[in-house]
Amino acid sequence: MPSAAIVISGNELLDGRVCESNGRYVSADLSDRGVKVMSVVTVADDPSRLTAALRSALATEPDLLVVGGGLGTTHDDLTAFCLAEALGVPLEEDAVALAMLADSLRDVAERRGTTVQDLLPQARRQARLPSGGAPLPPAGVAPGIAARHGHTRVFAFPGVPHEFMAMWRQVAAELAAEDFFPEVVARVVRIFGCGEPSVAAVLEAASRDLLETSITVGGGEVTVKLRHLSTARPAAQAVAVVAALERALPVFSTDGRTIDDMIADLLGAGGESLAVAESCTGGALGGRITALPGSSAYFRGGVIGYADEVKEGILAVPSDDLRRYGAVSTTVAAAMAEGVRRLCGASYGLSVTGVAGPGGAAPEKPVGLVYVGCSGPRGTRVCRDRFPGDRAAVRGQAATRALHLLREDIVSGSPRG
Amino acid sequence: MPSAAIVISGNELLDGRVCESNGRYVSADLSDRGVKVMSVVTVADDPSRLTAALRSALATEPDLLVVGGGLGTTHDDLTAFCLAEALGVPLEEDAVALAMLADSLRDVAERRGTTVQDLLPQARRQARLPSGGAPLPPAGVAPGIAARHGHTRVFAFPGVPHEFMAMWRQVAAELAAEDFFPEVVARVVRIFGCGEPSVAAVLEAASRDLLETSITVGGGEVTVKLRHLSTARPAAQAVAVVAALERALPVFSTDGRTIDDMIADLLGAGGESLAVAESCTGGALGGRITALPGSSAYFRGGVIGYADEVKEGILAVPSDDLRRYGAVSTTVAAAMAEGVRRLCGASYGLSVTGVAGPGGAAPEKPVGLVYVGCSGPRGTRVCRDRFPGDRAAVRGQAATRALHLLREDIVSGSPRG
Repeated sequence: MPSAAIVISGNELLDGRVCESNGRYVSADLSDRGVKVMSVVTVADDPSRLTAALRSALATEPDLLVVGGGLGTTHDDLTAFCLAEALGVPLEEDAVALAMLADSLRDVAERRGTTVQDLLPQARRQARLPSGGAPLPPAGVAPGIAARHGHTRVFAFPGVPHEFMAMWRQVAAELAAEDFFPEVVARVVRIFGCGEPSVAAVLEAASRDLLETSITVGGGEVTVKLRHLSTARPAAQAVAVVAALERALPVFSTDGRTIDDMIADLLGAGGESLAVAESCTGGALGGRITALPGSSAYFRGGVIGYADEVKEGILAVPSDDLRRYGAVSTTVAAAMAEGVRRLCGASYGLSVTGVAGPGGAAPEKPVGLVYVGCSGPRGTRVCRDRFPGDRAAVRGQAATRALHLLREDIVSGSPRG
Repeated sequence: MPSAAIVISGNELLDGRVCESNGRYVSADLSDRGVKVMSVVTVADDPSRLTAALRSALATEPDLLVVGGGLGTTHDDLTAFCLAEALGVPLEEDAVALAMLADSLRDVAERRGTTVQDLLPQARRQARLPSGGAPLPPAGVAPGIAARHGHTRVFAFPGVPHEFMAMWRQVAAELAAEDFFPEVVARVVRIFGCGEPSVAAVLEAASRDLLETSITVGGGEVTVKLRHLSTARPAAQAVAVVAALERALPVFSTDGRTIDDMIADLLGAGGESLAVAESCTGGALGGRITALPGSSAYFRGGVIGYADEVKEGILAVPSDDLRRYGAVSTTVAAAMAEGVRRLCGASYGLSVTGVAGPGGAAPEKPVGLVYVGCSGPRGTRVCRDRFPGDRAAVRGQAATRALHLLREDIVSGSPRG
């Protein structure tokens, strides 16, 4: 598997002003193309730091080094200089780069009502490359830089995201034409209802020397990603690992689909519809369901019953139940799910009520206590959970739990179940 | 100005699975506290790479090294080991760390219906620290690590974002108590209703040589951040710049509060209440309002009227209006806001209906067309906008627009207005 390192420069990326997107974009793209990204370094516009970051990256001898930012016309634009330092070569004006620059300046001159001759003195430094390097055609004004260091291919692009991404896509297409990227397959296995240690134990017991394996935990789910060459032996190993996970653990997806995608597919396939009744999630569950384009085919809407009066007045939760059991209870979760299903004329009603925190807890109703209810053609079920984490974490896990309860109910009633 | 380096580990951050948020969070926070962040390195879960990244960071002799990730229980969790290598000390089990771990495992055991003794064998490695280091109290299960290397203060936290952030806030409070941070002031000015060029023009005309100024654009708002030493001359310059922005532009916040915070304060102060009726946002507006702790004091709930039958049946939008004007119209936005206000007995009803895309557009109803309605004691107002961007961007801007419409209505009716 080829390896890559990424170095991105820019003060604005380090002080919270701008979210670094180029490194994230290119590392995701490289991973999908079967390249192992070993590091992404974001570094200040400081010549010694940038040179040191480039040197460290080259010292790990990656097959590819992608550099972003610092190719403009200001004193902060240090990449060509620092790259020359790190490669141990002088910086020289390149005739082809100068021609590319003059060409791209024609557009700028026209827009600003001036001439290339006016702009060139300041822009000219952008035609200076590390000796032995070659310019890459600009997507904006500044040309990129292609160079080599041992077996490492080095490519530097300007930091403006649309320029960076367009120029990277061009380089990636050329690398693909040279068969630089391996034939790689990625498989994603998603598990709900057990912890990371159980998943790690199954993986550790499996033979997977030909696979790159990773585990991610979030929202109560554990996600395993397997990446391997598309040849027979690694593929067979991946199939065996997926089967082992499915045998031992509550796997719900082996084809990359998230629980959100699966709910959409299950409801869509059955011609069924969904409504939600939300208390502690306050609308976030509906917001998540409708984040998917096309959700209007099965999602009817619902009620945000944040205040008890809304639970009672709109969802018809009996006031006796609210008084006797409290809003955070099995009884109220069931009544909310049944109420919203009836009210919206949906096949399924899904409810969430809980203590998201930090306030609102009582001795027998701690922060993180959440009841999730699902009412459907086969009756009503309620789950009780106690989620760890802060308000956002509790709410996120509650929404995920609700979608899984719905899936369990649909699957258990379907011919496949 | 003290300097900092940040090292974050995790394969999932390099292959596009998860957006790296911890490094971004802590670098922004450090900048606000007057620390110059020199580099953020994201590195694979690989012992030699992680050790090398930690060594490189220590070699630059920053005042602070913040490390995130790799403190869990799996074979991928290498931080304690690599940090010990980089510091040149052995790894040792720490009695205080072990006690912290047993304490945090009690909660986990209770949730999973098992015992600490069952969990401890696998979790125990989390009590191993580089010799000379000290454990930091966990926000989840794993303790953090505090260490020193020359004048560099080193702090390592688990990578789960809410744990990382809570533990960093705790450490930052202790560093602040030791006067580690310089006296720096950051002022945030938020503007809604004009573009970045107008803001840039005002800033360029102001004298601000003692200020570090930055502009960020997002969700239809423009945010200006001014940072300066807390001495008299820079402070006076900042006051003058803020005043110039307020004179020329629709500034809505000069004290750091977001529009979400301001709505919470305005409703809370007036003892007023809010309900929402959401179509294209599908609950995301309610989700956003209830993301703030304490929102139950003023937020009553609402109706997600995704299907027209729900708009008609629950919100009492006249079917004639839906037929004649369509769901995405001034008339329906007004009826939704009025309907939900009445239904929930709230002081204000806020509605959103629009075409979030990518489907659902018509020649006279393009993607991005959104109507936002506000019904309150002074009547009903509707705004029409056409937002750029994809489904998520349109929905986000729609929710932000709704909160601004509500603020305008409350402020115009208050004695301050």
